[in-house]
Amino acid sequence: MSNQPIGVFDSGLGGLTAVKQLREIMPHENIIYFGDTGRVPYGNRSVETIKRYASQDARFLLSKNVKMVIAACGTVSSTATELGEELPVPYINVIAPTAKAAVEATKNGRIGVIGTRATISAGAYKKEIEKLDAGIRVFQKDCPLFVPIVEEGFFGTDDPIASLTVERYLGILKEQKVDTIILGCTHYPILKPVIGEYVGPDVKLIDSGKETARFAASILAEKSLLNDSEQPGECGFFVSDRTESFSRIATIFLRSNIGENVSRVDIHNY
Amino acid sequence: MSNQPIGVFDSGLGGLTAVKQLREIMPHENIIYFGDTGRVPYGNRSVETIKRYASQDARFLLSKNVKMVIAACGTVSSTATELGEELPVPYINVIAPTAKAAVEATKNGRIGVIGTRATISAGAYKKEIEKLDAGIRVFQKDCPLFVPIVEEGFFGTDDPIASLTVERYLGILKEQKVDTIILGCTHYPILKPVIGEYVGPDVKLIDSGKETARFAASILAEKSLLNDSEQPGECGFFVSDRTESFSRIATIFLRSNIGENVSRVDIHNY
Repeated sequence: MSNQPIGVFDSGLGGLTAVKQLREIMPHENIIYFGDTGRVPYGNRSVETIKRYASQDARFLLSKNVKMVIAACGTVSSTATELGEELPVPYINVIAPTAKAAVEATKNGRIGVIGTRATISAGAYKKEIEKLDAGIRVFQKDCPLFVPIVEEGFFGTDDPIASLTVERYLGILKEQKVDTIILGCTHYPILKPVIGEYVGPDVKLIDSGKETARFAASILAEKSLLNDSEQPGECGFFVSDRTESFSRIATIFLRSNIGENVSRVDIHNY
Repeated sequence: MSNQPIGVFDSGLGGLTAVKQLREIMPHENIIYFGDTGRVPYGNRSVETIKRYASQDARFLLSKNVKMVIAACGTVSSTATELGEELPVPYINVIAPTAKAAVEATKNGRIGVIGTRATISAGAYKKEIEKLDAGIRVFQKDCPLFVPIVEEGFFGTDDPIASLTVERYLGILKEQKVDTIILGCTHYPILKPVIGEYVGPDVKLIDSGKETARFAASILAEKSLLNDSEQPGECGFFVSDRTESFSRIATIFLRSNIGENVSRVDIHNY
């Protein structure tokens, strides 16, 4: 048993969708979240840059005495694949649990993967799925506009900008008759209603944050690291740029107001 | 007379719209362009961070022996207002020449300003216009989705995503009956046809890159720093992240293919 916090990081605030899932599944865990808002977005950067940033992000979390590090970021998970080897605590990212859930969900053996440009060009979800089942066909599509659309708040099912953008990007996956789509970026669950309306109820949408939170719970249980407190867990939020707009965007992802409980970190020092 | 290059920097590649204008106005000038693609976008970052980045960008250009530094970036121009004082060569940014052109263009004394979140919240265009003519009313609107839409290539006049986004953001300026709009970000000239179609032919659209290029020419002439070569000027392009996607995006802004003439810089060293 351990009352140390779980550390979660993301290139920005999208990883808060994973925090929301962790809190639902493990309400007694304490969580430290780091969002690299000063260097967001990672999605269009080089692999070398993303690896350097991810190591700093993880070292910051370790400085907060975390018992586990979770990369909630699809881009980091796809590119900084050796990060776990650097760390003295269990490390998980979104790829393996999400790919496994997609493989279990598909019936026709045709899976779509959507993500940032870096995630798609790294192809990590595709490789992981093919490792699990070489017979499955994987269709990938990068969707660079989804993140800014979500952060602008243009994600209602009645918003034509959201629905036209979803249609533009996902038309190719519909043509390919996928029956399962991995939402390979933590921002995308916010667009789930719009995506669901476009692809129809027969296509399963796999949320990387949810699958990763479930996987984290199983690893903590297996290693006897769950928190046995009966109190609700506490969350600490850290970002690398101004904290002013944090509350507004955090509310989008967490669906609850976290107030001003956020601090600024100079991430270049880690 | 000086055959040293003119230095131009921007948070990313949008400043290439200013390079295009410089080349049209002064075809014999050599130009060094730095696009901070490793740290783009500046538009949502804190003032403190933007100032630090802008100083590094300018120092890199000075290392290339430039005779003038131009901040083509609306965000830098609006926030790093003391940058010129640090530099040993003439420094210009987009604010003063663009504001002046707008004041000369308006007939009804109602000017709209559009830009990134940082540009609009700094209010530099508004202050400059009011300094030139206190009787003019200025209406500001931030348009965070315009940059990613341009970089995705969704800027055709027949693209409903572009026209719906323009309508969403500029509806308020139309209501306010402005007769002049400052395109306060170097990406925005690419959307000029879509914006023009929405606001109609009676609204003048002021392109910050074009006005700044004209102003640069007048300053160089005044200081006897124009290049007297009769050869076409050369351009050198530098970026702070991967160079692979540079050509694709550069072609959007320059309307000509610049091939592979681009190098990577570690901007943290400046």
